[in-house]
Amino acid sequence: MRISFDEMYNEFLRIFLKTGFSQERAELSAKLFTETSLDGVQSHSVLRIDFFLDYIAKGFVKIDAEPSLIESTGPFERWDGNLGPGNLNAKFATDRACDIADKQGMACVAMRNTNHWMRGGTYGWQAADRGCIAVIFTNTIPNMPPWGSLSRRVGNNPLVIAVPRNDGHVVLDMAMSQFSYGKFQSHALNDEKLPFPGGYDSEGELTDDAAEIMKSGLPLPMGYWKGSGLAIMINLMTAILSQGNADHDLLKARDEHGPSQVFMAFSLKRLGGEDFARSIADEIIDFIHSGEPAREGGSVCYPGERTIATRMDNLKNGIPVNNNVWDKIKGM
Amino acid sequence: MRISFDEMYNEFLRIFLKTGFSQERAELSAKLFTETSLDGVQSHSVLRIDFFLDYIAKGFVKIDAEPSLIESTGPFERWDGNLGPGNLNAKFATDRACDIADKQGMACVAMRNTNHWMRGGTYGWQAADRGCIAVIFTNTIPNMPPWGSLSRRVGNNPLVIAVPRNDGHVVLDMAMSQFSYGKFQSHALNDEKLPFPGGYDSEGELTDDAAEIMKSGLPLPMGYWKGSGLAIMINLMTAILSQGNADHDLLKARDEHGPSQVFMAFSLKRLGGEDFARSIADEIIDFIHSGEPAREGGSVCYPGERTIATRMDNLKNGIPVNNNVWDKIKGM
Repeated sequence: MRISFDEMYNEFLRIFLKTGFSQERAELSAKLFTETSLDGVQSHSVLRIDFFLDYIAKGFVKIDAEPSLIESTGPFERWDGNLGPGNLNAKFATDRACDIADKQGMACVAMRNTNHWMRGGTYGWQAADRGCIAVIFTNTIPNMPPWGSLSRRVGNNPLVIAVPRNDGHVVLDMAMSQFSYGKFQSHALNDEKLPFPGGYDSEGELTDDAAEIMKSGLPLPMGYWKGSGLAIMINLMTAILSQGNADHDLLKARDEHGPSQVFMAFSLKRLGGEDFARSIADEIIDFIHSGEPAREGGSVCYPGERTIATRMDNLKNGIPVNNNVWDKIKGM
Repeated sequence: MRISFDEMYNEFLRIFLKTGFSQERAELSAKLFTETSLDGVQSHSVLRIDFFLDYIAKGFVKIDAEPSLIESTGPFERWDGNLGPGNLNAKFATDRACDIADKQGMACVAMRNTNHWMRGGTYGWQAADRGCIAVIFTNTIPNMPPWGSLSRRVGNNPLVIAVPRNDGHVVLDMAMSQFSYGKFQSHALNDEKLPFPGGYDSEGELTDDAAEIMKSGLPLPMGYWKGSGLAIMINLMTAILSQGNADHDLLKARDEHGPSQVFMAFSLKRLGGEDFARSIADEIIDFIHSGEPAREGGSVCYPGERTIATRMDNLKNGIPVNNNVWDKIKGM
């Protein structure tokens, strides 16, 4: 079935109000969750809401908590997320970074003791809408073996980079594992092989069998040693800049909470003009589009290009949701 | 044969003085080239010197040119590299970013019209030696097909991230292609398969045959769509922040010159204390080391760990250089 943006928004709003969110925060949460679905990322919206409510019930996510400033050097600020909802905290941190960048050219907000930000790309789109380049990353519980190891010793530590553009922002939103857990689930469910090796089997051999990878719990870093290295660097930077939890600190509780995140922004209007920057971006994207597709009838996309197509389609035709999932949400 | 650091340094110094570098700049160039060899990256030192001298002879690299400031917002500075030697420019930009970061907490120096920086890792080690976290990247000529394309429409745009640590800095230095051109050369020469697919053959199929990839000129982005996306973002950021050349602009001349680079630094002592930061880094590295190696007798390394081992060995036993290569250098 396909649900209109407004219907989904109202359902989320009802749930958040019932959970005890203030009107303003319930509205913002509902907006963020609905926009995530609108962009086709159900894994961090309709399929994540029960998990989110469970964390609230357990006290890991504190719905009224707001971030507090610990230290500022001017362009850099360190904040404590006080275990507030990760998406509200991340939205705040992104706005804060853009505010500073509009004055100083660039900014970095490091936030500790926050929570899972749901879809990371959200904050990239947000910064780009404000005319800022954004570089944003988070650590996570160690859920991936570093290259050369069969022990989970690093998080898949997602990275978001966004660049504003008139005909659709360029937004990269990627974890450091080659495939997401959701990809493993859908491929295992449909008994399909992954297109490329995505992790290890229980013998420690690389495999494209999603069910085997779910069993071993050992996903492959993207680009083997390269994604592994980048995940390690993101962990170091988030923990050091925020003076907060590193990946392994998140193992201390049974459920992941209190990760560290970094939000950097560069304000185009403060750094030499938005129009000029946007024309450079257009030229780069045009050049990429001018290449020969690898498959006949295929197309070469920039990061975020498909998201815009999905968003437009879902705005017009409604957001696709599994019937059972939607019934469950309506019953919450 | 193995050459001592001093012997190699003196040889490079002689060459640079003969080429017309001032005493000070010849000494610095010789130091950077020798340290690169010391760390085992011959591809950007003894194997690159003839290429570097050729670019000087052609006028693409101007040995006396120094960077000039275009614009400053405080933490952000835009510089023109004036086509000076890429390594001297990059060293300058890194120092400048660290200087600003020591005052403001963080900084970004964007530099346009510079030149190939030789080994990118150099500037990561340099910033870490100064107690700064560094995030540094460059664009390059389009030498890689973005994911979904068989046309070279993006550079392999290297990324360097460094974090200071007492027992050896953590330094990631990686291009966005899965393998380097040097790797293709050595595997093709020895008729060895790559350990994983590394590019396309002339039919547009993924292959682990290095000779085929060199023929097609189509290396694979690391992590397929992920490295492709990151390469596109690095291109956008370098060109926009420096208001300089994008990947495709570098095609205008027959030889690549005038790339755009970004140097970011975070000063640990300005951001809450070096000791604390270094203890977080130690904990993270200890946790990674505590994992089970994938192969018996193997070890799990953090980015830069092997570099330190190589450096120590080469300092003690001399830097390994191919006899013919060394003879050629002595004849320059």
